[in-house]
Amino acid sequence: MPATELQPPALQPGTLRVIPLGGLGEVGRNMTVYELNGKLLIVDVGVLFPEEHQPGVDLILPDIAPIRERLDDIVGIVLTHGHEDHIGAVPYLLRLKNDIPLLGSTLTLALVEAKLKEHRIKPYTLTVREGQREHLGPFGLEFVAVNHSIPDALAVAIRTEAGMVLHTGDFKMDQLPLDDRLTDLRAFARLGEEGVDLFLPDSTNADIPGFTPLEKDIGPVLEAVIAKAPRRVIVASFASHVHRVQQVLDAAAANGRRVALIGRSMVRNMGIAADLGFLKVPEGVLIDFKKAGDVPDDRIVYMSTGSQGEPMAVLSRMANGDHQIEVGEGDTVILASSLIPGNENAVYRVIDNLTRLGVKVVHKANAKVHVSGHAAAGELLYCYNILKPRNVLPVHGEFRHLTANAQLAIETGIPAENTFIAENGTVLDLRDGVVRMVGQLDLGYVYVDGSSVGTITDADLKDRRILAEEGFISIFVAIDPQNGRAIVGPEIHSRGFAEDDSVFDAVRPKIVKALNEAAENGVRDQHSYQQVVRRTVGRWVNTQHRRRPMIVPVVIEA
Amino acid sequence: MPATELQPPALQPGTLRVIPLGGLGEVGRNMTVYELNGKLLIVDVGVLFPEEHQPGVDLILPDIAPIRERLDDIVGIVLTHGHEDHIGAVPYLLRLKNDIPLLGSTLTLALVEAKLKEHRIKPYTLTVREGQREHLGPFGLEFVAVNHSIPDALAVAIRTEAGMVLHTGDFKMDQLPLDDRLTDLRAFARLGEEGVDLFLPDSTNADIPGFTPLEKDIGPVLEAVIAKAPRRVIVASFASHVHRVQQVLDAAAANGRRVALIGRSMVRNMGIAADLGFLKVPEGVLIDFKKAGDVPDDRIVYMSTGSQGEPMAVLSRMANGDHQIEVGEGDTVILASSLIPGNENAVYRVIDNLTRLGVKVVHKANAKVHVSGHAAAGELLYCYNILKPRNVLPVHGEFRHLTANAQLAIETGIPAENTFIAENGTVLDLRDGVVRMVGQLDLGYVYVDGSSVGTITDADLKDRRILAEEGFISIFVAIDPQNGRAIVGPEIHSRGFAEDDSVFDAVRPKIVKALNEAAENGVRDQHSYQQVVRRTVGRWVNTQHRRRPMIVPVVIEA
Repeated sequence: MPATELQPPALQPGTLRVIPLGGLGEVGRNMTVYELNGKLLIVDVGVLFPEEHQPGVDLILPDIAPIRERLDDIVGIVLTHGHEDHIGAVPYLLRLKNDIPLLGSTLTLALVEAKLKEHRIKPYTLTVREGQREHLGPFGLEFVAVNHSIPDALAVAIRTEAGMVLHTGDFKMDQLPLDDRLTDLRAFARLGEEGVDLFLPDSTNADIPGFTPLEKDIGPVLEAVIAKAPRRVIVASFASHVHRVQQVLDAAAANGRRVALIGRSMVRNMGIAADLGFLKVPEGVLIDFKKAGDVPDDRIVYMSTGSQGEPMAVLSRMANGDHQIEVGEGDTVILASSLIPGNENAVYRVIDNLTRLGVKVVHKANAKVHVSGHAAAGELLYCYNILKPRNVLPVHGEFRHLTANAQLAIETGIPAENTFIAENGTVLDLRDGVVRMVGQLDLGYVYVDGSSVGTITDADLKDRRILAEEGFISIFVAIDPQNGRAIVGPEIHSRGFAEDDSVFDAVRPKIVKALNEAAENGVRDQHSYQQVVRRTVGRWVNTQHRRRPMIVPVVIEA
Repeated sequence: MPATELQPPALQPGTLRVIPLGGLGEVGRNMTVYELNGKLLIVDVGVLFPEEHQPGVDLILPDIAPIRERLDDIVGIVLTHGHEDHIGAVPYLLRLKNDIPLLGSTLTLALVEAKLKEHRIKPYTLTVREGQREHLGPFGLEFVAVNHSIPDALAVAIRTEAGMVLHTGDFKMDQLPLDDRLTDLRAFARLGEEGVDLFLPDSTNADIPGFTPLEKDIGPVLEAVIAKAPRRVIVASFASHVHRVQQVLDAAAANGRRVALIGRSMVRNMGIAADLGFLKVPEGVLIDFKKAGDVPDDRIVYMSTGSQGEPMAVLSRMANGDHQIEVGEGDTVILASSLIPGNENAVYRVIDNLTRLGVKVVHKANAKVHVSGHAAAGELLYCYNILKPRNVLPVHGEFRHLTANAQLAIETGIPAENTFIAENGTVLDLRDGVVRMVGQLDLGYVYVDGSSVGTITDADLKDRRILAEEGFISIFVAIDPQNGRAIVGPEIHSRGFAEDDSVFDAVRPKIVKALNEAAENGVRDQHSYQQVVRRTVGRWVNTQHRRRPMIVPVVIEA
């Protein structure tokens, strides 16, 4: 149900325009554009991971059509934190113009720089920290500490002549965080006193009642599981979850075990986090994966990726007996992560295969080994009451999350007409404390597949889905265009159609006959001959096999 | 990780052989074969629904290879209850021999007969009820009432000279069921006193601690939601869940609303259930769907299918604005069903689209509108303690469910060596109270796609997955086999590859050159020429596009 396109009016000087390009109606590819007096400020440039109806797609990028011709007007990109859905598309934007300044915290920029290095891009960066203020053209920025499932996350307050905006990025409000770095509610209160004209909060968990449990409650559970494990322990989590890895390191140390990190992204990110002091490695606990085999089985913990059942990740390969660590009886695997909707079958397949090998699998469903990184409804209510924003635009979430978040705002007394449920491409203008929806741009999905960016269309994906469901039948025939006589062929081949090619013996004469008849009826052009072949084969396969494979006729004149 | 094949020894007279053909390591296509003295008894013949890695497959049947040549030896098929995963493959078996007697309860047989009618098969049936005993060849059967999410479910005790088996089918132990028909623990106790040699229990919820909540707790929630609904209410559930529909009818009646059933399977099944007295329709509540539009919006409840996000079901079509009932602001949709793993994305898409239309969506995550139909761990412990079976073979579940169920058995004191984790095709022999695993048959998946049964192979599905991920490139070329000169073509086409066909201009000369060189190197046969084309195009597409589409070369001699 895409929104109807509505071109916004020309932007007047002194009015702030807000256009979310991604992250609304989806969990991923977060990107918001702010425009004032001809200058653009961008907050986050993330990727979205494909669902099963987008086969073969590696990544999905925000559609930057509205700013593609205006890259020179961008004064900077603020990155709220280092997760892929907030920084993953930065390389694709910097490919177009590599000197746009990136602003973010120490850890966020370190992760972006490592990523950009793989794309051979050296960015211009400005490291900022909580409390810091910066000016970029007409935008006054103030950074505010927030707590999330990756350290060093920042919200950003944007002061302009049109009013003040608070953009949270992802956050929760763990009141006893491992690193003592709270979401700064004192700053929220101060901003609230000053007057927040537009608030853009994280909506991911807005439909979950109550409060996200404490991250620190997980440590004792991990420690108990590791204490009882008779042999090796493998913990799988996200490669960016520094706090979770911290708890694994601590739990291992408490049990006299060493820890080996497995997987390129895990090793790289934790190296960065340790170098910057975000990960505190207990003395002598870490061991190189290559040497881990020398440690006795009951003295080692492996920390890996693959908690979402990704087929190529370490954990799936272990479960398939396709990894150099051959897990079995007595080993324990802990999935210390959420189960992202859509990954259930893959994750349960990994759990089943591990169980089959004799491995004990501990996961969210049978032990408290994960908490979310996002604020639940109860926490969001605190925010609304502390900030008392004039207008609210919930971001980062599926439609149901945005709606739930808006409902929370309304329950705290924000007028419903000041609460905006928007889509990607919705254009909102702020002036004198008043927000108006003034347009709707028609944005698409930009698919990355291999080295192609943006060449895959939704029509191609539809073709792929048909191919997946039904396979295809290709028919090649070279004819005399004057009489439709087949000179070479019909050569008929199929894949995924799941019948022996000998079944086509029955349809070959029908094609020859149909081509002749078409010629007699005056058909002369290639396109019409191909239609004749398509219809003939389509009718036959539907009648005989009750199936609808893709039919690919190629008729050439010989 | 398929088990290694091991042919069982010839079966001795007086020994009972048990071979599960489906339902182990999966949730679906339940089917167990019992053999004694040359005769076969079958319990359940269900279907399995495909997962996303089995694209285009409609249904998956049990592999009946071990009994295909022995249909005349089958003395009967016991059907424990009327769910698709227990009766859905009956038509495919009866197609091979339509006079095998079917035994089941009134409702179960009525549902099977309706299904067989669509396949134009009129079966031989024997209606049985709880407490009833029957003899079929060497098998003495006693039927026992069990409680499940469809009425009239039966467990079956099988008495033989080799020992007694209790096969539960699906069940739970709701202690206050809507229809007062309890799982008959007195009968379980009596069978336990007599001595159960082998127990085959439902494992679906064995890994869920505690007890399945009462079905009757749902009624008040439904009633409260309907009472508060300002306009229409649409309830989606399974088309076989008579008790759930009963609660919707009662809640509607209590609120002075009429109920219209939507969807062929819902109307058919509830018609059968009402005719047989399993559904008690309050006076004047039901209204034909065609007349429901005349009822005021705040006086109607629609009862539909589609709670799993199935794209063609009523609810998905409503959510897409593609159904004659146009839902919108003020309407309420209740998803009164479980969320089967793997369906999350589809279901959430439906919820999002409904929310976008202004509909209020009530589902398991935000209200208590569903309870499971299967016994959780606490209930299974009761069973083990009441029955004290000598041996246990957990059935109906993924590997992790079977393992969890076996663990429960062991915790109640059943020796681990008497607790069998089997796979489909495992052969177990029972004699003198002793069960032995004596073989492992190599069974496959039998896929139904359109009108083809069993012609689709795993290789075809692999092809379909490659086509889905990458699309294909077909190359046709007619050559002079003596010198490899292309006479017609190369004609190159692609689908799902997502690049304009003009990109192939670059590879066409490479193909011509490679064919010539191959001829110079002595290649003469079609297969080798095709390999040359495949390699040439494959190398080009990998280098230029970093992609691996399926390459379909057709070289013919002109």
